[in-house]
Amino acid sequence: MKKIRTAVVGYGNIGRYTLEALLEAPDFEVAGIVRRRGDENRPKELEDYKIVKDIRELEGVDVAILAVPSRSVEEYAKAILPLGINTVDSFDIHTQVATLRLTLDTIAKQSGAVSVISAGWDPGSDSIVRALVESMAPKGLTYTNFGPGRSMGHSVAVRSIEGVRDALSVTIPLGTGIHRRMVYVEAEENADFARIEQKIKNDPYFVHDETHVEQVRCVKGLNDVGHGVNLVRKGVSGKTHNQLFEFNMKINNPALTAQILVNVARASMRLQAGCYTMIEIPVVDMLPGEREEWVERLV
Amino acid sequence: MKKIRTAVVGYGNIGRYTLEALLEAPDFEVAGIVRRRGDENRPKELEDYKIVKDIRELEGVDVAILAVPSRSVEEYAKAILPLGINTVDSFDIHTQVATLRLTLDTIAKQSGAVSVISAGWDPGSDSIVRALVESMAPKGLTYTNFGPGRSMGHSVAVRSIEGVRDALSVTIPLGTGIHRRMVYVEAEENADFARIEQKIKNDPYFVHDETHVEQVRCVKGLNDVGHGVNLVRKGVSGKTHNQLFEFNMKINNPALTAQILVNVARASMRLQAGCYTMIEIPVVDMLPGEREEWVERLV
Repeated sequence: MKKIRTAVVGYGNIGRYTLEALLEAPDFEVAGIVRRRGDENRPKELEDYKIVKDIRELEGVDVAILAVPSRSVEEYAKAILPLGINTVDSFDIHTQVATLRLTLDTIAKQSGAVSVISAGWDPGSDSIVRALVESMAPKGLTYTNFGPGRSMGHSVAVRSIEGVRDALSVTIPLGTGIHRRMVYVEAEENADFARIEQKIKNDPYFVHDETHVEQVRCVKGLNDVGHGVNLVRKGVSGKTHNQLFEFNMKINNPALTAQILVNVARASMRLQAGCYTMIEIPVVDMLPGEREEWVERLV
Repeated sequence: MKKIRTAVVGYGNIGRYTLEALLEAPDFEVAGIVRRRGDENRPKELEDYKIVKDIRELEGVDVAILAVPSRSVEEYAKAILPLGINTVDSFDIHTQVATLRLTLDTIAKQSGAVSVISAGWDPGSDSIVRALVESMAPKGLTYTNFGPGRSMGHSVAVRSIEGVRDALSVTIPLGTGIHRRMVYVEAEENADFARIEQKIKNDPYFVHDETHVEQVRCVKGLNDVGHGVNLVRKGVSGKTHNQLFEFNMKINNPALTAQILVNVARASMRLQAGCYTMIEIPVVDMLPGEREEWVERLV
């Protein structure tokens, strides 16, 4: 069986876990790693891989997994799709997904390539569950409750405040889509903690949520990449009310994101040229091997 | 917008709920009801509909929803697909799904039509969840726990025992895919209840499960079409263990089955000719309206 030759673009947290997921997948091979700094300061675990600055230095790449920040996704996808290489990413700015999809759809179709965007757990697998339970009870309400787990966006917002050396914002689910923010701050010496606390509570990221700020000696010691979701829908099937659905998970966040990126990289090889989100892909196409086997095992 | 013209084939429990779901859907119109007995003893709620014995008496049918017993699905699909009419069903004999799919795939492709089989909640939406969580943690174990809710197959098996006037078998989930059977029996006068109880416990449907048999005066008074599912997976994403996933629902069984049949009837209009199970269909195609709107709302 010809394996899917894959480049990992970016080698931060998600990139590292993506490499692990690729090595565990039966149908993939690693073409190489694309890093801005190239081969410089090569990490020990990458000894056996080709590391390049430009994906065009790698041979026969079928798909590029963009393990880069959301704000860089569009730029990378626009550069790589015209090479006839599929791209997948976990772009997570919910309000910009639809626009990015249209932009990349045109480029992907012109290039005869496939792009799968916003493929993580939210957006991503949660989106599939939301679509599924919405279809099963077309009238009703869905709530997605996140956590406990750290929010990168919120943590970064706190870190940018003057006097903050390091910070961690943990999301606590209170139900019905309402969240508490627990913020742990390592302040610089002589910083005014009361002022920092006030700044956080007035920040647009926090101003609408119940926010608690706590001073700690060392934020690094709190680091835990676990996260959770509790997604609930109550609604109406046909004319029948009170249909109840719930999806829960407790997961290592980057490990799951990376696994899903690998899954959609596989699916990208089975799709017509264009740009897709996960709700537009048959779930069976995210699994290795033949459809027939999965129909027999899972249906 | 041209509506999807749909025939309901069979007018038992699922047929009735299917009609309700069709009436609530914004993009469907009812072409008519196909019943073996035709127009005879027409139920009051069908006054406004054309009721026929043969689907060919209905005009311009796009899709036929086969609300018939699993054992009759193949026969109906084989008769209707060659008319160029899509068929959908909730065929639920898990071990025969793969074979039926291959048989109907050939006929559907020859006819330029689409067949979606095994579209209910299990097989069906549960299959989608099983495929999704399997992809998210490729190594690991999934357990599907059913109930509390009645099992038609088990109830029918008990009813066929001599001396049983009516019976209800309720499935109770004990976790890890193990189930208790609570059997409620209305015995005929002078029947030997101890013998009936022994017969039930030795029946292949019950012999491997913890089974309790209770004599009741009236089984009809116990009727409740509620059901439930608790589907759990614990597994490995990439090289990261202990990823936990859970899907729960508490639902009216025929109402949900009917809603899902309507959803896949919609999806059938968006698929290439052939036969599909639900894991092979993008979830967004089960929802009404335009993809773009759902990407914006749900992703």
